Amino acid sequence: MDESVFSRRVAALRQILVRESPDTAWIIQPENRRYLSGFRAEDSQLIESSGSLLINDLLCLLITDSRYTSEAEKEVIGFEVHTLKEDLQNEFAKVVHHIGTRELAFEEDYLTWGLHRQLAENLKKSSPPVLLTPLNNVVEQMREVKDDSEIKALETSADLISTILDHTISRLAPGVTEKEVAWQIAGLARDGGAEGLAFPPIVASGPNSALPHAVPTDRKLRKKEPIVLDVGVKYNGYCSDMTRTIFLGKPAPDFKNIYETVREAQLAALRAIRPGEDSDYPDAIARQVIKDAGFGDYFVHSLGHGVGLATHERPRLSPKKPVKLKKRMVVTVEPGIYIPGKGGVRIEEMVVIEDSGPRILTKTPHFGDLIS
Amino acid sequence: MDESVFSRRVAALRQILVRESPDTAWIIQPENRRYLSGFRAEDSQLIESSGSLLINDLLCLLITDSRYTSEAEKEVIGFEVHTLKEDLQNEFAKVVHHIGTRELAFEEDYLTWGLHRQLAENLKKSSPPVLLTPLNNVVEQMREVKDDSEIKALETSADLISTILDHTISRLAPGVTEKEVAWQIAGLARDGGAEGLAFPPIVASGPNSALPHAVPTDRKLRKKEPIVLDVGVKYNGYCSDMTRTIFLGKPAPDFKNIYETVREAQLAALRAIRPGEDSDYPDAIARQVIKDAGFGDYFVHSLGHGVGLATHERPRLSPKKPVKLKKRMVVTVEPGIYIPGKGGVRIEEMVVIEDSGPRILTKTPHFGDLIS
Repeated sequence: MDESVFSRRVAALRQILVRESPDTAWIIQPENRRYLSGFRAEDSQLIESSGSLLINDLLCLLITDSRYTSEAEKEVIGFEVHTLKEDLQNEFAKVVHHIGTRELAFEEDYLTWGLHRQLAENLKKSSPPVLLTPLNNVVEQMREVKDDSEIKALETSADLISTILDHTISRLAPGVTEKEVAWQIAGLARDGGAEGLAFPPIVASGPNSALPHAVPTDRKLRKKEPIVLDVGVKYNGYCSDMTRTIFLGKPAPDFKNIYETVREAQLAALRAIRPGEDSDYPDAIARQVIKDAGFGDYFVHSLGHGVGLATHERPRLSPKKPVKLKKRMVVTVEPGIYIPGKGGVRIEEMVVIEDSGPRILTKTPHFGDLIS
Repeated sequence: MDESVFSRRVAALRQILVRESPDTAWIIQPENRRYLSGFRAEDSQLIESSGSLLINDLLCLLITDSRYTSEAEKEVIGFEVHTLKEDLQNEFAKVVHHIGTRELAFEEDYLTWGLHRQLAENLKKSSPPVLLTPLNNVVEQMREVKDDSEIKALETSADLISTILDHTISRLAPGVTEKEVAWQIAGLARDGGAEGLAFPPIVASGPNSALPHAVPTDRKLRKKEPIVLDVGVKYNGYCSDMTRTIFLGKPAPDFKNIYETVREAQLAALRAIRPGEDSDYPDAIARQVIKDAGFGDYFVHSLGHGVGLATHERPRLSPKKPVKLKKRMVVTVEPGIYIPGKGGVRIEEMVVIEDSGPRILTKTPHFGDLIS
């Protein structure tokens, strides 16, 4: 991505800072960090950060430790790299003081209570004292609406997973285990040039398909049962996410009915997506279709979610906390019906919202295909 | 693992609660949750919890949402499963009130500042009000010393990664890319029955080996250059972690010297590990060997870390915040020297601390082998 993308994002954040009281933003959330600086490193654990950003009206600083200095210097665009010599807890107050910060905005949905407590104590003692102020999803909100470079990366990511899923489905056969299929998918992702998987593939057959977050097992695929494949890759940092449910041979009549209900709910939801619409509306539409068919208790999650640098990000297509849908948001549409102990069906598309409605990025043609 | 393991752990936590003022502990950190309850689900993101535990003197409750109810009911041992009907933010106060909590201990190094703020507001309003009190690494400290079932799982995990690394090293050849080697390792982990990789494999050759956290690239392995392989698997939840640096053909003389220094530092550190010793002592011993050899500026991380349900956990073998080493702690010993732009060497063993000193769990025989 060219430099101007990052400087535009930093400029947008600076404008928000100008409107609010904090003079400096401290960015620790890994996807937000990559979005603003290009720094690709991940955090191995919450308590093991690979770095954070300090941004004020004069400077952009990436602070990291000696394990990451070389990568950081290669990767970041428009940021100066500062390598900590001590623990963050000890050195942070000095760095913040050095850049003249008086009020520091932190990401309240990522900073732990414990680290906040330690830093707040140190910052209060510095002279002049530094005030800590919560920043609530500011960069996450910037990330909701995608720019050209992001839509391009998401298209490529969706193309890649579509090809992989198409190939995988066309070779499914009874007797193969869920784990083996998951492994094939990982191999195809690698061969296809993905940066990695966006999340561990879900391959869930028979009763396992009733678990929305099933982990692949040694269970062998059988005829007539639902097989849920929920997969995604990362391309240039951007995630894809798609699901198909297929049957080897003719499905039992009850699952045929469930499948058709889920697909009908999905199509109705897709028709309800447009710029300006509330994000809970497509969810309600899909939920009504499923309820009318008598499965109201079995759609146990929300309709969809934003996709970008994270597999799950804003906006949520859910009954809770609706927001206005906007042009250039990229979201999933994934209704499902799950009958405990029996099985489940989920179908998921990834779409970009355009003026005329959703443009579907995922491309695998399979819908309830019967493969004998 | 049998039920008594979990009830013993819960009993130990309850004893700590009796000594302190909170009547109920709220456990949200994923490894702590698994350690106490057997619940295996992972959290896909910090803001997407798959569940949490409430433990007081009368009851053990796992609270989760409908996506995870079935798994939870199958997996947890000694816990009642409560499925949330609303968001945690809304329903949590009711659940806590229902079980009679007056003072709730939370994990300050995992709970975000923002969620704490929301919950504290709701809990203050409930009648009687509930006080939130930070819990600082209590379960993490319990996890430092391993019980029999854990040592067995860690031994198996270390055996598995030793076999994988042995096999991988014996087949390395010039021209293969770092990514291809990383992929072979993932395949061997899967074929060997691992639950998964403990972390993405590091395969770093030539100048890339100077990056302690290198991500595998398309760079082809060459003769005479250092090739760092840092790998681990998960077995029954327990991680292994080991590193070898090898050369295809005779190493350049400077790297031979670096290799011998790192190995000498490791052996000296291993001799310094015993129950009752401070955890910064083996680090200091290794650091001195490296400094004496003239590479003092190039050992940029700490000597090692605890391994268990997490790849990195307490205790740290680091110059900072020393603790007393104890029998049945399992730690890595991994000195390294990294020359920016040129290359690096790291060797890592995983050991369990016994009365007589460290017992090495990792078994691959390769040390600075020359493979032509």
